[in-house]
Amino acid sequence: MKKDYDPQKWEVLGSEYLLRRPWLTARRDHVRLPDGTENPEYYILEYPDWVNVIARTRDGRFLLIRQYRHGLGETRYELCAGVIDPGDASPEAAARRELLEETGYGGGRWRLLSILSPNASAMTNLSYTFVAEDVEPLTEQHLEATEDITVHLLSTGEVRSLLENDEIKQALMAAPLWKYFCQHSL
Amino acid sequence: MKKDYDPQKWEVLGSEYLLRRPWLTARRDHVRLPDGTENPEYYILEYPDWVNVIARTRDGRFLLIRQYRHGLGETRYELCAGVIDPGDASPEAAARRELLEETGYGGGRWRLLSILSPNASAMTNLSYTFVAEDVEPLTEQHLEATEDITVHLLSTGEVRSLLENDEIKQALMAAPLWKYFCQHSL
Repeated sequence: MKKDYDPQKWEVLGSEYLLRRPWLTARRDHVRLPDGTENPEYYILEYPDWVNVIARTRDGRFLLIRQYRHGLGETRYELCAGVIDPGDASPEAAARRELLEETGYGGGRWRLLSILSPNASAMTNLSYTFVAEDVEPLTEQHLEATEDITVHLLSTGEVRSLLENDEIKQALMAAPLWKYFCQHSL
Repeated sequence: MKKDYDPQKWEVLGSEYLLRRPWLTARRDHVRLPDGTENPEYYILEYPDWVNVIARTRDGRFLLIRQYRHGLGETRYELCAGVIDPGDASPEAAARRELLEETGYGGGRWRLLSILSPNASAMTNLSYTFVAEDVEPLTEQHLEATEDITVHLLSTGEVRSLLENDEIKQALMAAPLWKYFCQHSL
């Protein structure tokens, strides 16, 4: 390995869409690596960016949801989360909309905590996690027909225990939660 | 919302493979939710399980790699990682193999730190992260033709800084690293 060498961008020699559906866009790229090696079949999944919310009420409880996830075939605790829609003015606007729709909670003080990648090798999108402190119940849930979500208020100790036991299973949610707990020594 | 209700498993009414390639298997499920709502077009991506390694040398430095990732189009610091092959006797055997191939390091004391999901809604696989303390250089790198990876030893402070700044971009790597830093107060 040459000293000071850093792995360089691949060249795309060709690109073809295999699927373009509302919830799945798959592309095959023919790529050439810096050393000339070619890979005619590198798959990329295009997704819009996503948002998560670490929401806490005035008394310090964490607002989590439970939802069945068909990929794993399990129902678990999760952060409120969703997709940034074209109509959302910003990632924070999308996160505020998702929190209100899925839980009926809103208001409070918001800040961006992290921007992470679900899978940098094959997926094009990023996931923004916001912290919302002092949220309060504003309305009823407004779920879409295919959403089946329950809302839960958990103590700091309960969430820490979920994290320790990998019961917050989605890495995109566990990573910012651990960051928050680590930064606040919770 | 009924009290004590927990979101239940969906029923699969039909299932069809859209793509079955070595690196991408996509399936469309026709599903029925507990309330009877049907979704004829729910996409699932089937993947084998993955492994990550948080490897540290005897002097406490973290063994990271740099690799270009075509999904995001960026080269960043990462944990050594890979796919569990059918020939691997266990997730730990896969992790030991990947560490040796990608970095030439091995030995040391190993333990399982976390099992997380890349995307519980659409992906079927899990990611196992192992901690390997006191690893040492054993051989040269043995990279595949399409791997272009450099190896780096970073201090605890340098890795903490990468985490704080979201420069460990992959959530599947950031989550167990934060867990490790949080549990060890690093």
